Amino acid sequence: MLKFELLKKANKKKGCELSRARLGTITTDHGVIDTPIFMPVGTLGSVKSISVEELDHCKAQIILGNTYHLYLKPGCEVIEHLGGLHEFIRWDKPMLTDSGGFQFFSLAKLAKFSDEGVAFQSHIDGSRHFFSPEKAVEIQMIIGADIMMSLDWCIGHPASKKQTRQALDKTTLWAERGFDFWQEKGAVNNLFGIIQGGMFKHLRSLSAGQLTQIDFPGFAIGGLSVGEPKNLMYEMADHTLPLLPVHKPRYIMGVGTPEDLVELVGIGCDMFDCVMPSRNARNGQLFTSWGTINISNAKFRLDKEPIDMNCNCYTCSNYSRSYLRHLYKSRELLSYRLNTIHNIYYYLDLMGKMRDAIRQDRFFEFKTAFYSKRQN
Amino acid sequence: MLKFELLKKANKKKGCELSRARLGTITTDHGVIDTPIFMPVGTLGSVKSISVEELDHCKAQIILGNTYHLYLKPGCEVIEHLGGLHEFIRWDKPMLTDSGGFQFFSLAKLAKFSDEGVAFQSHIDGSRHFFSPEKAVEIQMIIGADIMMSLDWCIGHPASKKQTRQALDKTTLWAERGFDFWQEKGAVNNLFGIIQGGMFKHLRSLSAGQLTQIDFPGFAIGGLSVGEPKNLMYEMADHTLPLLPVHKPRYIMGVGTPEDLVELVGIGCDMFDCVMPSRNARNGQLFTSWGTINISNAKFRLDKEPIDMNCNCYTCSNYSRSYLRHLYKSRELLSYRLNTIHNIYYYLDLMGKMRDAIRQDRFFEFKTAFYSKRQN
Repeated sequence: MLKFELLKKANKKKGCELSRARLGTITTDHGVIDTPIFMPVGTLGSVKSISVEELDHCKAQIILGNTYHLYLKPGCEVIEHLGGLHEFIRWDKPMLTDSGGFQFFSLAKLAKFSDEGVAFQSHIDGSRHFFSPEKAVEIQMIIGADIMMSLDWCIGHPASKKQTRQALDKTTLWAERGFDFWQEKGAVNNLFGIIQGGMFKHLRSLSAGQLTQIDFPGFAIGGLSVGEPKNLMYEMADHTLPLLPVHKPRYIMGVGTPEDLVELVGIGCDMFDCVMPSRNARNGQLFTSWGTINISNAKFRLDKEPIDMNCNCYTCSNYSRSYLRHLYKSRELLSYRLNTIHNIYYYLDLMGKMRDAIRQDRFFEFKTAFYSKRQN
Repeated sequence: MLKFELLKKANKKKGCELSRARLGTITTDHGVIDTPIFMPVGTLGSVKSISVEELDHCKAQIILGNTYHLYLKPGCEVIEHLGGLHEFIRWDKPMLTDSGGFQFFSLAKLAKFSDEGVAFQSHIDGSRHFFSPEKAVEIQMIIGADIMMSLDWCIGHPASKKQTRQALDKTTLWAERGFDFWQEKGAVNNLFGIIQGGMFKHLRSLSAGQLTQIDFPGFAIGGLSVGEPKNLMYEMADHTLPLLPVHKPRYIMGVGTPEDLVELVGIGCDMFDCVMPSRNARNGQLFTSWGTINISNAKFRLDKEPIDMNCNCYTCSNYSRSYLRHLYKSRELLSYRLNTIHNIYYYLDLMGKMRDAIRQDRFFEFKTAFYSKRQN
């Protein structure tokens, strides 16, 4: 069972702004995670284009695997036979897996939801499958995730109150069943509950009220970043976070931009995941302290400087924008790697800086400096 | 100017077989190369999918860049502005560039050959360009290659005696002009001549006779591996190698399979390059001591073993065939990297084993053992 230690809980006002940023540690069987933390996404047993040593270099403390994807490919038989996902991919630090809920929303064909679970067709070959809340936990136990997620029904935006309520009710039902199954199986690893409720505050309250009745070791806010405007996302997070137990980790799923991380850390979120740093890297978009740049831009053709002079990542320590532009324009495989290393490093460095700021009681100052540097 | 030291020159008979394998060192401004050596191909300023640190891990001593490709992308202005290709790509060991001759044959559109050089259209955008023998050297000087190649006319197989003779004559003419230009420019770096002559022994003799009149620091045999049967390639190499100066390095361009390397080292070739280890890696074909395997094969689905138990590469030291198969089948970018590391390591390890065998006077024994292990 994980141990969450809340080292510092800011609750400071500056002008009309309140900081609820928290500093903590999560201790798992595979090591300690400093929070707030960002989790790089390793969908299919690989954070695309980079190695586990490069994840270490980027100071990754925990990575995320996608249960839906791993269940389809390579499949549970392979992962189990090879001794679990940690062993399979040679990652010896903590790992979190989602439950598949987001993929049923974004990817799977013809997902059908019932009290029993979700019937769906593979996006790869159309084959038919069924996830019960118990099966979702069982698969994650085979994967061997340090933190597993309860099966949830994630809906898009906009959605009616009725639809949202239906998804919320199923999510609560499945959370209870998944939790009971996990308890029966000896409560190995850790299972988090997922709050749903769409863009309705009272439904978020209802979901949080129901889910926190269950003694999950941590909670996530799901169903955000599904097409809603940014301010609505913040509003929902801001409404929901205070409804969650103070002494358990809080994870906002699938979020977000560097600005999102700064905002959401400021209101008390501890864990994040997003494909943005890795996916955007493969599209040539790189994060810097003054905003994003696109490495394909002609102005970088003869540019001897690194992406960001203040960055200590492998890419910035060795390569010019000119070379990175050339690799990207030539579609060299090394391009995706060097870009990804930089972006993941940037995200995790940003989290480290936020932790330092919280520790030193200067999160407001950090935030002011962060925004004052932005040019785009 | 490079220094070639011939450390050992076998000239041994066993039964009816003669070994002419040679052991040597080539000293350049960027370090010493042990020969016989294989040069991984870094077409566009990157050995596809791997980093310079991984090249070091694979024990690469020299890599090859393609002048035709680099001239088109990123272009001489970029490379010159960034301080040469070594600095641009952060490779501090020796580098060889070809002259473009092979790409005029294989890739460029509408190449037109004259005494003055080659007019061609870019395979990328159809833009028109012209390489004189002087320009080919000049570009390579900008690139900063430790070993540059003289402009040559490479023809396919089959080709008539007349065509072959025409290409040979131009190659000799250009070799003289390129050499003179190189001398005028202070003879910085090193320039090798390329023997042509197609599949006609007397034309190979003629070309070698003409080219070796010029005091190049080394010689290459070009125009092989252009579609001819394997035994014809060996026959031409076997005929031509003894016509080259003993105390200068001998390089067979664009060859080959592991078997080719063993055969050609045995008849006195010192240097090789080929895209095979890297290209085949990206197609899932991996080299082992018993032959090649295709990692996509279903039999590797649950296979916990490394590619080759006897291989010490990063990939074999860490990953199972099962994981490598999963990555390959999922088209994960890490797949190309892990496969390429293994194949390049295999090639360079094979060269190291051949050098050891020559040094210890047991090249025949090595060759017998090499073939006795092969299963395919």
